[in-house]
Amino acid sequence: MSVAQEGDLVLLIASNRKQFIVRLGQGGELQTHKGVIRFDDLIGQPLGREVRTHLGYSFLALEPSLHDLIRALRRTTQIMFPKDIGYLLLKMNVGPGKRVVEAGTGSGGLTLALAHAVSPTGRVFSYEVRPDVVALARKNLARVGLLEWVDLKERDIAQGFDEQDVDALFLDVRSPWDYLAPAWATLKGGGFFGAILPTTNQVSRLVRALPATGFGAIEVEEVLVRPYKAVPDRLRPADRMVAHTGYLIFARKLVSPELVEEWREWRRPRALEQIKAREAEAED
Amino acid sequence: MSVAQEGDLVLLIASNRKQFIVRLGQGGELQTHKGVIRFDDLIGQPLGREVRTHLGYSFLALEPSLHDLIRALRRTTQIMFPKDIGYLLLKMNVGPGKRVVEAGTGSGGLTLALAHAVSPTGRVFSYEVRPDVVALARKNLARVGLLEWVDLKERDIAQGFDEQDVDALFLDVRSPWDYLAPAWATLKGGGFFGAILPTTNQVSRLVRALPATGFGAIEVEEVLVRPYKAVPDRLRPADRMVAHTGYLIFARKLVSPELVEEWREWRRPRALEQIKAREAEAED
Amino acid sequence: MSVAQEGDLVLLIASNRKQFIVRLGQGGELQTHKGVIRFDDLIGQPLGREVRTHLGYSFLALEPSLHDLIRALRRTTQIMFPKDIGYLLLKMNVGPGKRVVEAGTGSGGLTLALAHAVSPTGRVFSYEVRPDVVALARKNLARVGLLEWVDLKERDIAQGFDEQDVDALFLDVRSPWDYLAPAWATLKGGGFFGAILPTTNQVSRLVRALPATGFGAIEVEEVLVRPYKAVPDRLRPADRMVAHTGYLIFARKLVSPELVEEWREWRRPRALEQIKAREAEAED
Amino acid sequence: MSVAQEGDLVLLIASNRKQFIVRLGQGGELQTHKGVIRFDDLIGQPLGREVRTHLGYSFLALEPSLHDLIRALRRTTQIMFPKDIGYLLLKMNVGPGKRVVEAGTGSGGLTLALAHAVSPTGRVFSYEVRPDVVALARKNLARVGLLEWVDLKERDIAQGFDEQDVDALFLDVRSPWDYLAPAWATLKGGGFFGAILPTTNQVSRLVRALPATGFGAIEVEEVLVRPYKAVPDRLRPADRMVAHTGYLIFARKLVSPELVEEWREWRRPRALEQIKAREAEAED
Repeated sequence: MSVAQEGDLVLLIASNRKQFIVRLGQGGELQTHKGVIRFDDLIGQPLGREVRTHLGYSFLALEPSLHDLIRALRRTTQIMFPKDIGYLLLKMNVGPGKRVVEAGTGSGGLTLALAHAVSPTGRVFSYEVRPDVVALARKNLARVGLLEWVDLKERDIAQGFDEQDVDALFLDVRSPWDYLAPAWATLKGGGFFGAILPTTNQVSRLVRALPATGFGAIEVEEVLVRPYKAVPDRLRPADRMVAHTGYLIFARKLVSPELVEEWREWRRPRALEQIKAREAEAED
Repeated sequence: MSVAQEGDLVLLIASNRKQFIVRLGQGGELQTHKGVIRFDDLIGQPLGREVRTHLGYSFLALEPSLHDLIRALRRTTQIMFPKDIGYLLLKMNVGPGKRVVEAGTGSGGLTLALAHAVSPTGRVFSYEVRPDVVALARKNLARVGLLEWVDLKERDIAQGFDEQDVDALFLDVRSPWDYLAPAWATLKGGGFFGAILPTTNQVSRLVRALPATGFGAIEVEEVLVRPYKAVPDRLRPADRMVAHTGYLIFARKLVSPELVEEWREWRRPRALEQIKAREAEAED
Repeated sequence: MSVAQEGDLVLLIASNRKQFIVRLGQGGELQTHKGVIRFDDLIGQPLGREVRTHLGYSFLALEPSLHDLIRALRRTTQIMFPKDIGYLLLKMNVGPGKRVVEAGTGSGGLTLALAHAVSPTGRVFSYEVRPDVVALARKNLARVGLLEWVDLKERDIAQGFDEQDVDALFLDVRSPWDYLAPAWATLKGGGFFGAILPTTNQVSRLVRALPATGFGAIEVEEVLVRPYKAVPDRLRPADRMVAHTGYLIFARKLVSPELVEEWREWRRPRALEQIKAREAEAED
Repeated sequence: MSVAQEGDLVLLIASNRKQFIVRLGQGGELQTHKGVIRFDDLIGQPLGREVRTHLGYSFLALEPSLHDLIRALRRTTQIMFPKDIGYLLLKMNVGPGKRVVEAGTGSGGLTLALAHAVSPTGRVFSYEVRPDVVALARKNLARVGLLEWVDLKERDIAQGFDEQDVDALFLDVRSPWDYLAPAWATLKGGGFFGAILPTTNQVSRLVRALPATGFGAIEVEEVLVRPYKAVPDRLRPADRMVAHTGYLIFARKLVSPELVEEWREWRRPRALEQIKAREAEAED
């Protein structure tokens, strides 16, 4: 039977929905306004159950999802939302064994998801210019046990990236158009470029700069998540929703400059239709 | 320098945006209406460049993303969209080393993404009752090189699942409420349950059934992706978009039945606010 | 030159955006936390200009739009949003000279818009069972000068409607399916039926009941308004938006019962395509 | 009993949902691919019923809504969608008795709605530079019986507008920023300005130009309509939807230039909250 073990991360939720994420250690405890939870009461027990404080208040103990971990990060900066992160991981083919560059690190929300996705055989190279932010990200990554797959680099990316032939590169910076030449240089041929930007003006500027630097197959997309009230007899959307986090911009590194104009915009064969693949292996 | 190698999957796009995904083999070739592309012209070369058919027509050669692979699957059934898959991977904490159950397999779109995410140390157990569909999924998974992380099981899930203590379970079936008892039995305590359903009536029915079977922390969400025309001086959303694929339903296995009523619906501490985590390790 | 006159409604906005809607009367005044605004300072002057309190604080004076008036109503009940009202007026062909039935009146938000649209030659018949709510609606309508086009009826609509051959009927009640027979009886042949409902369960129930009562050409739609930050160099959507007010349901009264099954759902000739009209007058 | 009369517009829908809008005249008829419908079979009968062609094919006869009329216009140009029109009528306070300027006329979709809303006591002044488009709009407006409330002006608006002190002005032209000075001149103090633009670049440009010309209280919004499949046991959104028609921009004419900077952007008192009005009449 699967039980919580020393070193596991656990999400503890009070009945008022206040949430805590802790790492279990023998003799450890969580101090809350409702009393103390002893970690020895959790170690060796399955999750999905109730745990009580020394004052008798009830908490629900769960494994935190990557979604929970990202939302729970200590932050000094605006953090990327799971809706955007989940989508870009698929679009940019981030998976086990990949080598990915990211800038800036910020509080480490995307870094965490990239590290999780490329582990245990890949690597994330994350650049951030502010020392205090690097320190926070390092702490955040260490807490969730993902630091070992990340190289945190305290560096201004105007000086370029150290890596060669990386699979994907993501820019969450104010003026990504300033760093396209080094981005192109560090990506492998056909490598995946991505960025997130809050304003339409920035999107226009980046989309204009990309072809001039050797990027093609450009896509701009927004991801929206609409939550519902999960009441079976009164099912309905929530009253409010997050209307905007940022625009996602994707492109591919083209190694033949003459291709760029022709392949500027990503166009689907026919709008919204699923593409049809063909198998063409010699032995087929 | 990173170059295409024998065994790599390559996405070939014609200037009319017709797309082909092939696996490179020495001496292999792709027959198109524009002529033949010889794989020996690709092996040993970087991607992100042009390749020409024997008739001189130009194709762009790229590494396919997981997004491309899912969209390109041969299918007999409706396939899950990358927008939904990317989101559920984060919500259900699917990552390296996890053990995940899925039903039905269908054409294998989600299976492929799950296998990619749990590899190289995790495992996907995928159930499907129709033999011809299992055969198609097997072929699709083998093509993209992900079959080794998947157990395909030709089985009616009314008979239950074989696995114990799995981390996550996803149901893409018409009446998921019929299989909640076996789903609960196969999940670990606190394990992640997910489902996708096209109609509001089905969502109501599932949300009603979940607490009765020991699931809590229920969430219902929709993911929408809005594409833009990536033209810098005329930036604007595309004219049309996919308005609906399905509602995503998430829940957690609760091991103490008395908890279910209290933890029925997932509620955020305060609507839309980021949760705040606290570190509480003994050594902190 | 167009100037504010005695009897005009005026919207006064403080620099902190606190808003007041007043009707100008000689010698009248508005007491605010920033001091007193004398109406004699407004009468005879154009709007779109500044007016100052006796303490010297500045307010902007504008003509209120119907949108402003609806949002500013005193209310005891949830009020319909302008986004929904604007759409239904066009869908239900509410315009000058039409006779429209509505229930319940509520705080009178929709009533106000209906009265505005049908005036000066049409009429609104508005039913409401709670005396205090009728009184509030009466006051709200009188304030904006639209009461003369409205018959407020303090009545339970289970007893039916008094009118015959009305052009359109709108139900904003909890269980509209209970009143379809009287709704059908009061509408003219082909007359426009509309309703708003917050939950999917209610929509299903109404859509099931409509054909059984002789309604066809059923449509269900949602209207969403996404606000932007109107900053030219940093144009972007607002962070949050209203995600749900209600589902709008439209139908038409069919006088031949045998038609109902065939014309159950409104279907467009081809999805989303503009219909093509033909002119067929005898003299053409 | 309300019956169709000579001169009425009628919407005729075939069982394959092909639609025709006709004006009833004695002895008139509609030729369709399914046979001829004689208008004498409609005159004197209620609508909402079946009518048959001489070949026995069935059509449903209904009163067309303004929504139907707009969608059915003969057009040479892109036409505004009812979702946008319904919203702007409320935002710009277009109702009985108002005087409204519009440019360009285009096929007359918005003109029709404006004329309908201001009749019988108001007036629409609609400017269009292309003679063939004016002719088409004239025919469209005559067909639906709304021409008498419209002054169609074949004129380049760079020469300015003839009217003074109009209540509202709407620009559906490619470069509205070029016409803001004449727009300001023709509006009354506090008058309602509106525009629709397809691209974010145009919106930025207009939003930048508006304050420089004496407009304030600027708002930018999008209206989205999401259609559902109206099937009670399988209620769900349609698969596709219109994702974009245009951005709506609203502003108010300010007569004191010094106000413009302070009142640049329309801000709500608190985001999304309903404003509270206060009654302040002297006699209250």
